Amino acid sequence: MRLLFIGFGTVGQGLAELLIRKKELLSKTYGLDFQVVGIADKIKGSVYNPEGINLHDALDKAGGGGSLSDLPGAKFDGDALDMIQQAEADVMFEATYTDIETGEPATSHIRKALDCGMHVVTTNKGPVALNYKDLERLAEEKGVRFLFEGTVMSGTPLINFIRENLAGCDIREIKGILNGTTNYILTRMEEGLSYDEALKKAQELGYAEAVPDADVLGWDALAKVTILAKYVFQTDKNPSDFLCEGITGITMASIAEAKARNKRFKLIGKVWREGNIVKASVAPEEIDMSHPLASIMGATNAVTFTTDALGDVTVVGPGAGKEATGYSMLVDLIAIGGRR
Amino acid sequence: MRLLFIGFGTVGQGLAELLIRKKELLSKTYGLDFQVVGIADKIKGSVYNPEGINLHDALDKAGGGGSLSDLPGAKFDGDALDMIQQAEADVMFEATYTDIETGEPATSHIRKALDCGMHVVTTNKGPVALNYKDLERLAEEKGVRFLFEGTVMSGTPLINFIRENLAGCDIREIKGILNGTTNYILTRMEEGLSYDEALKKAQELGYAEAVPDADVLGWDALAKVTILAKYVFQTDKNPSDFLCEGITGITMASIAEAKARNKRFKLIGKVWREGNIVKASVAPEEIDMSHPLASIMGATNAVTFTTDALGDVTVVGPGAGKEATGYSMLVDLIAIGGRR
Repeated sequence: MRLLFIGFGTVGQGLAELLIRKKELLSKTYGLDFQVVGIADKIKGSVYNPEGINLHDALDKAGGGGSLSDLPGAKFDGDALDMIQQAEADVMFEATYTDIETGEPATSHIRKALDCGMHVVTTNKGPVALNYKDLERLAEEKGVRFLFEGTVMSGTPLINFIRENLAGCDIREIKGILNGTTNYILTRMEEGLSYDEALKKAQELGYAEAVPDADVLGWDALAKVTILAKYVFQTDKNPSDFLCEGITGITMASIAEAKARNKRFKLIGKVWREGNIVKASVAPEEIDMSHPLASIMGATNAVTFTTDALGDVTVVGPGAGKEATGYSMLVDLIAIGGRR
Repeated sequence: MRLLFIGFGTVGQGLAELLIRKKELLSKTYGLDFQVVGIADKIKGSVYNPEGINLHDALDKAGGGGSLSDLPGAKFDGDALDMIQQAEADVMFEATYTDIETGEPATSHIRKALDCGMHVVTTNKGPVALNYKDLERLAEEKGVRFLFEGTVMSGTPLINFIRENLAGCDIREIKGILNGTTNYILTRMEEGLSYDEALKKAQELGYAEAVPDADVLGWDALAKVTILAKYVFQTDKNPSDFLCEGITGITMASIAEAKARNKRFKLIGKVWREGNIVKASVAPEEIDMSHPLASIMGATNAVTFTTDALGDVTVVGPGAGKEATGYSMLVDLIAIGGRR
């Protein structure tokens, strides 16, 4: 299979490392042989090589501050859309930055790749939260797959879990801890830190950004909740249609009070149906200590599905990280091109 | 698809109920239309009808103490093997009782069905724990699937989770609570009941049998651990090759002592690799309260996978039950014949 990377930041590099490490396994176990024919990154430069790009060299360039454009390859000086047009790849990996307001430029990249008949794998929340239905319809028209395991809980099985493992189940509610940064902050606050101290720790560890709004105000979880609402319940609603409250109103006192009632605050994203109406929200919730979500501490993520046939099923795992998110694209690639 | 039931006890009936309830969904969403052409049960009788058996009627007979042989159908008076030979089905569901010493008669049923070119779905631990490799090889030779999601944690995704969602991952260890009865007993003991009192409660609720040995001595968990050892690590070892210790040696005092150390006793089944040697065991273990498995209370099951790309991933869900186990066969059926 001919692979194309659009965006070669942490996630793309994480995938590239896994592709190197698992090359033999992919070939032997899944009958999946590949070459990377193009990489386009706004900052790190672009390289197009129909003979196959050496991923070691690409990682060296990207990691060492060099330009991918210096790697051996055919002459190329266009942008990402030109690359998609030119590359004749079988699968495009879209891992540019998430813009949750516009979904761009990722949505245009994905539309272009689908139009060219490529399968698309993305970790980018924007295009899925905003344009899932259109993109899925386009993929169906073109007879290709549009997969996005990594958009929610990184490589921890969630989207594919719904598709494969809960096939035929009636999912009534999905509820979980979808943002590791806020869960880490709440964990440290329960240990006695103030909100400001806990946020500072999270920033030191690289969990939170200098401007932490997307995490602490709940926007990141909201994008994920919207993806689940669209994928599972086929709603047309957008992030702005749902209630969203972050953790900035939670105090050490409210945490202590909850504890006295044998409960624990978690920032809970949830999606459910009331009759034919799809509802969703992100807000702090007091979770009973006996619920599996209550015991999820630190930066870990977890989701509980309430279903007809199985009752409650919970999946716990990482929600971020270079390798875990890179893996989400690898498992989607296997779903597309792997022999089972 | 033409379906055949061998064994029509709780699990078979659970599947039949789901097939009735989800008939339209299966057809519309998965392009999966079916008729049940045969049911053979040692106690409830057998019916063969190439035109299709009415599942409502079959459930009425089975539930009401009548004989399936009274249902409309072609003349049939053979045994299960004759039924498999005659039925010309596409998929056989094997849900007879588990004999973990011999794996029979289920293994013979499965071998026969595979020989006849049928896909096989089973919830029966015996054939998989004892003969996985042979049966899988036979299925491959015949170009059919041999699926057994329901043998471990009923319909909670585990076997299919490994196959689909952890594809390409290096699984280093699998460790979990694989028996709900013993977890229920340990939960009640922590609440203050003695072992005998807790066992009696479990028996009243139908969790434990009159002779509770298979659960409390760890044999049930051992069969499941062996299935995982064979499926994930391709070992030839059998249940008798692994250490197995139940919960009968756990006292209220030891539970209290563990608690004082911020730990909790769980009956843990685990499988791991040391170099090229596959190891497995079932034994009570003190689990740190911060581990996801520590918070699993009552009859719930849970498993933690330790992997290279994702670190730890945990799945929590029911480990038994008519509908949950019936669903395990439905999801395997969709994997075999469903459009995705």
